[in-house]
Parts: sequence; C-alpha cells; structure tokens
Amino acid sequence: MKAEIIAVGTELLLGQIVNTNAQYLSQELAALGIDVYFQTVVGDNMNRLAEAVRTASGRADVLIFTGGIGPTQDDLTKEVLAEVLGRTLYIDSEAMANVDRFFQGRGVPMTENNRRQALAIEGGTPLPNETGLAVGNALFVDGKFYVVLPGPPKEMKPMFEHQAKPWILEHVLTGEMPIYSRMLKFAGIGESALETKLLDLIEAQSDPTVAPYAKEGEVTIRVSTKAASELDAAVKLDAMEREIAARLPEYLYANVDEPIEKTILDLMASRGLTLSAAESCTGGLLMEMFTALPGSSAVFAGGIVCYSNEMKEKLLNVPHDLLEGDGAPGAVSAETAKVLAEQVRLTVGTDIGLSITGVAGPAHSERKPVGLVYIAISRRGSDTAVFELNLKGNRETIRMRAAKTLLYRLWRALQGG
Amino acid sequence: MKAEIIAVGTELLLGQIVNTNAQYLSQELAALGIDVYFQTVVGDNMNRLAEAVRTASGRADVLIFTGGIGPTQDDLTKEVLAEVLGRTLYIDSEAMANVDRFFQGRGVPMTENNRRQALAIEGGTPLPNETGLAVGNALFVDGKFYVVLPGPPKEMKPMFEHQAKPWILEHVLTGEMPIYSRMLKFAGIGESALETKLLDLIEAQSDPTVAPYAKEGEVTIRVSTKAASELDAAVKLDAMEREIAARLPEYLYANVDEPIEKTILDLMASRGLTLSAAESCTGGLLMEMFTALPGSSAVFAGGIVCYSNEMKEKLLNVPHDLLEGDGAPGAVSAETAKVLAEQVRLTVGTDIGLSITGVAGPAHSERKPVGLVYIAISRRGSDTAVFELNLKGNRETIRMRAAKTLLYRLWRALQGG
Repeated sequence: MKAEIIAVGTELLLGQIVNTNAQYLSQELAALGIDVYFQTVVGDNMNRLAEAVRTASGRADVLIFTGGIGPTQDDLTKEVLAEVLGRTLYIDSEAMANVDRFFQGRGVPMTENNRRQALAIEGGTPLPNETGLAVGNALFVDGKFYVVLPGPPKEMKPMFEHQAKPWILEHVLTGEMPIYSRMLKFAGIGESALETKLLDLIEAQSDPTVAPYAKEGEVTIRVSTKAASELDAAVKLDAMEREIAARLPEYLYANVDEPIEKTILDLMASRGLTLSAAESCTGGLLMEMFTALPGSSAVFAGGIVCYSNEMKEKLLNVPHDLLEGDGAPGAVSAETAKVLAEQVRLTVGTDIGLSITGVAGPAHSERKPVGLVYIAISRRGSDTAVFELNLKGNRETIRMRAAKTLLYRLWRALQGG
Repeated sequence: MKAEIIAVGTELLLGQIVNTNAQYLSQELAALGIDVYFQTVVGDNMNRLAEAVRTASGRADVLIFTGGIGPTQDDLTKEVLAEVLGRTLYIDSEAMANVDRFFQGRGVPMTENNRRQALAIEGGTPLPNETGLAVGNALFVDGKFYVVLPGPPKEMKPMFEHQAKPWILEHVLTGEMPIYSRMLKFAGIGESALETKLLDLIEAQSDPTVAPYAKEGEVTIRVSTKAASELDAAVKLDAMEREIAARLPEYLYANVDEPIEKTILDLMASRGLTLSAAESCTGGLLMEMFTALPGSSAVFAGGIVCYSNEMKEKLLNVPHDLLEGDGAPGAVSAETAKVLAEQVRLTVGTDIGLSITGVAGPAHSERKPVGLVYIAISRRGSDTAVFELNLKGNRETIRMRAAKTLLYRLWRALQGG
C-alpha cells in the first residue's frame, strides 16, 4: 500500500510555516504499515493543485491532503479534487450546523464564505472537525483512497486520530493484520542515552519492533506488532514492555501516550494529595501545564507567579536578607527556592508545594549565568528537596526544561525514589 | 522564474525528521523573487527519484535538491540526476582533497565509500562544503537550472548562502527584481471577516499583493511587492498599509511579525506602566505568554493562579458571599472577575490588573455552560472594564481564546478605545 501526502498552501511555499503535518502523518501511516513514497507541497492554485492530484493518483494508492479547506477564496482542495474525480460538491448539513452554531455562539453574523467550510464531495464520508469549522472528507474512487484533512495541526491531528484513522483501518487496510502499538513514555533521560540502552532491540527489528519516536520535549519509544487480535498483540507488547522497563526502571513513567503531568495528577488524585506552585523564571508555564488537563482542580489548587523580588517578599514571605544585600544568596539560589516551595505550600494550604527560580535569559541576572535554575519540592512532614540545574538552550528551551525536570523530580518523589 | 525544491531522504518519508530545509529555501528563494511552485519529498530510491526529477524538469525552471549526497550506498541524488540529464560523473579534486584532509586530521583511514562525497556532474560547478565533506553542484542543462545541496541544515545553509545564492544571482537572475514583504498583524477579528473587508485588494492581485496568512491563533496579512531597492519597496508597502489600516483601524496592532503581548509590553514599557494578573480557568496561560518574552520583567510583576474558590478568598479577598450561597453570582461571574482584577492590582501593586474566570470544560461548573468566561481590566483611577465571552471549542481552544481576547481588550484600552 503506497501513500502520498499532499500539503496545500502557498504559506508553505513561501516558507512562512514548516510542514510538520507531513512528519506527523508519515509517522502515523508508517505505524499503520502504509509506505509513504512521496510528500508534495503545492500552492493555493487551481491548475497546479489539479496537476499534483493527477500525478499522485498515478503513483499512489492512498492520497492524504492537508490544508486548503478553510473559508477563503484560495481554499481550493475540495473543489479541485471533486473536479479531477468528476464528482460534485454539496453542503454537509451536520458541518453546516456546526458552522452556524459557532457564529450564533459568538453573536456575530456568519459571512457567506464560511459555507465553504461545510463542503463535502459526493459519495464520500464527511469527517467531522472537533476543534474547528472545516469538515474533512474521505472517499474511494477508481481503486484509490482519498482523505482530506485541515491544515492547522490542532484541527488536523484530532481529525486524523478520531475520524481518518478508523476510516483507513476499515476501508484501506481490509484483510491485512492490523498493527498494534504501545507508547512507552520516558522522562529524566535524553533521547540518545535512551537509544543507547535499547540499541540491540532497535537494530534487531524484532517482533515487536522498537522505535524511538521524537516528539517535542519528550522521549517516547513506540513498540509495535502485527497481530490478529488485540489480545494476541497485548501478549507480545507486554513482554517487550517488561524487557524495556527492566533496563530503564527509573525513567519509564507511563505506557500510554500522556504527558508526565497527567501521570502525576492521577497518582496524586488517587492518594488525595493537593498541589500548589510558586514560579519565578517560568512565569506560569508549570501551572499552565497542570491546568491544561481536565479535572486538574481536584489536585491543583493554585499558585503564585512571583516574577519580581517584591512579589517574593510580599506574597511568599521570602526574607529580604535572602534576596538582597552584600553576600545575600539572591533570588536565584537554593535558599530562595526552598522558601518559595515551603511558603507556597503553607499559603495555599496544600500537601505539596513546588518552586522554580532561575535565569532563563537572554540576559544574565544577579551575575549568575543563563541556564542556572533552582527547583524545589516541599512536602508536608518531609525535608524540602532542592535541585540545582544548569540548562542549555534559549529562553524558551530553558523554561521548558526547568518545568519538565521539576515534573520528573516530583514523579520520582511520589514513587519514593 | 518557477522553482521546485526536492528533498531526498527516506527518513523524511518515515517522519523521523521534519523538512525544515524546504522552509529555509522557500524563504530565501522568495526573497530573491523566485516563486516556489512545488516542494517534493522522495525517498532514497533510484526509480522514484528519477521520476521526481523528470516531473520537476517538466514544470519548473529551477530545481533545488537537498540531501542524498553523503557517503552511503543509498545517497543517490547526483547519480540519478546525472543519469536523467545524460551526463557523466567525475571526482572533483578539490572536494577529494577536502575529504582526504578530514580523515588525515582525525588519524583514521578513509573508507572507500567516502570518495562518493567528492562526486560532481560533468559540465557543472562544484559547490564547496564549508562545514562537511559532501560537495554540492550547480548546473545549467537544456534551459533548466539545477542546484544540489547537502541534507543536514548546518551544511546546507552555509552552502546555499555562500555558494549557491551567488551562482543563482549570476546565472539565474539576470535583471529580475527581488520581493519585499511586510506582515500586518490583527487581533479581535476572525480570518474570514478580515478577508471580507479586504476582498477587493486580495482578488485584484494588485501591486503590492495582499494575502491572508493563517497562523495558529493569529490573523496576519502579508503585503508583498517586487522592487529595485528596499526604499522603492517601502514607498509602495507604506501606501498599501495605510489603505488597509484605514479599513480596519481597531484591529491592526502591528506591522511587524510579533504577537500582541509583545506590542502590549512595548507600549506599557514606554509609558512606565506595570501589570499583574489573576487567572482562574486559564491557570497561568496568560502570564506564561507575557513572561515568555525577554525583558518582560520591566512591565510584568507577577500574579496569582486562583484555581480554587478558597484561593480566590484567601489571596484575593473575594467576599465569600460572592462565591457561594443561594443566589450568589459565583466564581464565574462579572462580579468576581471585577474583584479579581482590582484585588490582584492592589495586592501586587501595579498600574493595571487583569483577570480571567470561566468554564473551560469539559465539565460544566456552577451550572454554567462550558465556554462562558468573564475577563476584566482594572486600571488605577478608572472604572474596571468587564467583558462576558461565550466561547466555542475544546478546553485548550477556550482557554487560548479567553487569553487572546483579554489581550485584545487590553491593547484597545491602552489605545484609549
């Protein structure tokens, strides 16, 4: 089964955005056992898009389109595909109702061009859009499979995962043994160190196969096998998971695709523990990660972004002598991190209090180097644990790594490690 | 002048890496006034690569290749291109000397396959590799231009900048004018409403051209023109910017590619104003957006994530009667938003205090619907402004839209609007 991924959008050809959709879909299709032979990017131009469709139809069995299904005049993917295939377009009533609801909810009139987002191709299956307005489409014409997805990754990914992938499994991959995968999630270890520990398994291309899977700010191993049933697959996947877990017990935090903050929330909720945080250099990033999760309020009560020294003194009782003056440890110090974690725990009234204070850059602070960060974990009835980090990277990377390292340390602390 | 960028490498088709080279080259070619009509990715396969070369030769004037020129057996770009063009390959002596020096310097024997990195196509110009071993190539055959570059960005970029670009300027661009662009950034208006207001300009394909450009959570218009100099371009871009600004004065916040929080920070810094925030349903997202910006500490002092009602009472003095009890407005109410914004301003001691409280979902809260959010702006010496929002989408979208709407309202307030 050969596939081609066609991204539609002049913004890609101008280099304004990078085609991360192609990477995501390539990984997903590889996991399904479908080989991607070409990735193509074409602009919002009727003739050239039609040419790309014809070229791809001649050399692939499965054509996956991303982009060009929004409301504007240069969103042409469905029109062109319908024309090349000799099909007509219609307004999908469910998708149209979704568009109408959106504008009613905002209390603004819907402009006519938004109707385009509800267009679908005759004889195909509309793919609902959970996170946006443009409906997707899947169809089978003259022995070829066509799947049309939105361009924005936050719409494309859920539509692929919940709509397109089940359609592909049902219509494209009939008779083939499906591939079952399990994601093993790691924290506190780098990708290359992880790979070194598992190199024999990766290179053997054994059954199940073991493949590192790069994702932003995370290290993941995908274990995959073809099997007749989920139960058959589970037996093989369990065995491989045990083998990997035995080699890396202190880093493997989950065997489902979830961030470590989710694992931590579930663990804390099951024990009835509550959490608060005081953030300086990360400025809310850590709390944002927790509160992004549905149901986080059962564990996470709140916290304080103490960006200025004044805030540290006023709201978190950090002694002035600790922050300023000759020989004072300063805001970026183990001492301050400790007080922040303890005080936020007491002030908010939770079982655990976290803190982060450091120099995220680009400028130095308190004559301390960019990348120096202190993190602390205060637990009711325990000594406060403080860690000094020396992180590399730009401001964004340092902030993200500081938050991720604290999450890893908290997870280890909850494990009793 | 039409160009196609062809990336060669199975690792791209497996989704192991993302094709950032295509973005870089697209930007560089656009700046040179060369239109990229297609980007193609093909694997390390002789037949499919030959097919890609023939397809591209049929529709582009300039073909730029990246990747497939390393030492291994599956590095095939030069071999296949030579074969399609009916040319022979030879070992470039300078490139070979570079390879030899590298191995001598490391004191390790050179394996025979490394000679492949010095291969060049007869009748072309070898392009030296400053940061690696594989030599590039540029040639003109039957009215078409071919440029072969390495795959690793740290080799590709210097080779493009120092070798390929001068070759293109000399051989490809005889007398053409470069393209100059300006990004106009909008907030508080959707993409389709914006387009409706500018449809005549977009459709006229006038000079400068006006194109909407979708980016996650933002609306941008790109204005572009070909001109002999930056000054000539500026005159034309200024006129078009004035025309667009006159139509949408209350939404155009910047004419450089920056997020609205950057515009706000600069505006507040120039007036010596300081900022704090109290976040409930957004849980730190808004503060994270500000503190992600270098230099934000001059304006942003800190704030409070008051996720629980207890936090709202304890740290921000929200009266208990407002939050709970029969007939109380509740945490998600205009009244509470107002108190939160005023109290965080007073508690932190800033000129402006912001607040967000709402139901991000997926579950209802206080019997209020998912998407109901109140935002408030408290300014020293002014009445507090409160806005009720009814947002659609999932938890992530509702949180992001709540934060973005508050940023837009703050920007308007600073404009006196």
